[in-house]
Amino acid sequence: MNHPELVRLKGVADQGIQAFLDRWPADGADGLYAPIHYLMQLGGKRLRPVLGLAAAEAEGGVGSGALPVAIAVELFHNFTLMHDDIMDAAPLRRGHATVHERWDANAGILSGDAMYTLAHMALSELQSASLVKVLPLFNATALEVCIGQQSDMAFERRKDVGVPEYLEMIRLKTSVLLAASLAMGASVAGANDQRVSAWYRLGEQLGLAFQMQDDLLDAFGDASTGKLVGGDILADKKTFLRLHAEHHNSEVSKWDGPCESPAEKVEAVQAMMRAAGAEQAARERMGEYVVKARRELDGLDLSPTWHAAFDSIADHIVSRKA
Amino acid sequence: MNHPELVRLKGVADQGIQAFLDRWPADGADGLYAPIHYLMQLGGKRLRPVLGLAAAEAEGGVGSGALPVAIAVELFHNFTLMHDDIMDAAPLRRGHATVHERWDANAGILSGDAMYTLAHMALSELQSASLVKVLPLFNATALEVCIGQQSDMAFERRKDVGVPEYLEMIRLKTSVLLAASLAMGASVAGANDQRVSAWYRLGEQLGLAFQMQDDLLDAFGDASTGKLVGGDILADKKTFLRLHAEHHNSEVSKWDGPCESPAEKVEAVQAMMRAAGAEQAARERMGEYVVKARRELDGLDLSPTWHAAFDSIADHIVSRKA
Repeated sequence: MNHPELVRLKGVADQGIQAFLDRWPADGADGLYAPIHYLMQLGGKRLRPVLGLAAAEAEGGVGSGALPVAIAVELFHNFTLMHDDIMDAAPLRRGHATVHERWDANAGILSGDAMYTLAHMALSELQSASLVKVLPLFNATALEVCIGQQSDMAFERRKDVGVPEYLEMIRLKTSVLLAASLAMGASVAGANDQRVSAWYRLGEQLGLAFQMQDDLLDAFGDASTGKLVGGDILADKKTFLRLHAEHHNSEVSKWDGPCESPAEKVEAVQAMMRAAGAEQAARERMGEYVVKARRELDGLDLSPTWHAAFDSIADHIVSRKA
Repeated sequence: MNHPELVRLKGVADQGIQAFLDRWPADGADGLYAPIHYLMQLGGKRLRPVLGLAAAEAEGGVGSGALPVAIAVELFHNFTLMHDDIMDAAPLRRGHATVHERWDANAGILSGDAMYTLAHMALSELQSASLVKVLPLFNATALEVCIGQQSDMAFERRKDVGVPEYLEMIRLKTSVLLAASLAMGASVAGANDQRVSAWYRLGEQLGLAFQMQDDLLDAFGDASTGKLVGGDILADKKTFLRLHAEHHNSEVSKWDGPCESPAEKVEAVQAMMRAAGAEQAARERMGEYVVKARRELDGLDLSPTWHAAFDSIADHIVSRKA
């Protein structure tokens, strides 16, 4: 994400998002928008808007033409975070109190709904011809993200989740929005259906790699980056690592549930994951996704600049430390 | 609502909604859609879809052309009920357990989000030219409904709510969706901007009358209809009746908060409302809204059949018992 074009586009996205949000000031509407401003100001890499803008420019479109897509996907993504954090009873988001902690669950629900609406309002500022092209994908993607979150919650109550089901869940919960960001960006820049589909597949593979790295960082990450290591393990979350380890060693599930020494639990499960080869398997799997992503990227036959920019996104996804 | 055209259109709406929902079966997506089917099957008068279809036909459009509008507004309305019920901690909806009671709050949040998405998917099945015409109104209305709910919750924590603020809150929370249903129905049938605006104003006035009758039924309704009478009073809700009574008699607020005998509280506050002339004032206010609605209706200069049909809607709103 250090490629100069991406750095520039992050600036474009940040500015566009801010200008859009300024139309609904934080002190307006009896406080409805305050949680939206709060969450958006906690930062983030703006990965989805950058993907949307980059795909548009790589297709020869002018960046700002895709700005409504960029704003919409970032608002939508953050809306899902606001609601997911309530559902997961998460106290922190990006190191700060979650919206339902800082306000209450009602604020999180309603400001989330408003935020989803703002995402649609942003998108509908596309030119009509572009809007009718991308709206079905935006809506289908939104529903898939809901399905992914539903599966994620359902898996917590199940003991028989398989790896293919897990991968389908993370595809829905994470990948499809990255894929749609690229596809919508390319579409508004005038890419044909075949190329839009290729951009979508590129995003899917990047998303799967992204989530695999997320799971790895959560289980084996570097605590010095400020990230809490072992959160998924303590929550008995059925990640790829956990499912892989379980498949080889049924003892893993004995650690399920609350325990007296969280540090001991994290260490024990980490050891079992490593012994079962889960870490290695996840890295290999992530490598496969990146290979497939690069194949799609090659197929798109972009200019050297944009090829390098997307290459750097793939690099970032697998090498990031936080 | 007994006018034969309206009865017919309710059938069209019911069938269209069912056919749409059948595409997302209740047992699909790990249970994501089950709460949606549950809530939609609790019935309701389908007022908003009937308004949308009726406006379309009154404008000379074929009813089914406006069906995406009808399905969208009903799904959107029920999505807001699902989320509002969580926020209000309401145990019952239409005499049955609310979604968050029957499942849990997470199900209500996420299935509500999915339901909102389905509303957008329904709307996007309009022909492109119609879609781009009505989408901005749909989105603006959705945001206004959120603002109305936010104000409603904010008013609970305030002691200085005035009647004008209250009326603006119910306009946002209730009227704008009725107004948008009419305006969008008329728009997809080809009505010009001037007529679309007249339909919108008609819906606004009907909505204000509707809410006034809602407040009256809650405070002075007929318990034999199965409606809980006094719910707003027990919740210290700042309705028009309550604000009017308070203005004339500061004793009303002495009953605020929990009390040992709910029946006694309801009776006492009812008496104060009546003594302050609140009931009479609400009926007069409702009458004024209906007069304004009929003026808009006259201005639309509809065929005798449709004029009579909309007349019967106005009659229904002010004379309904539940």
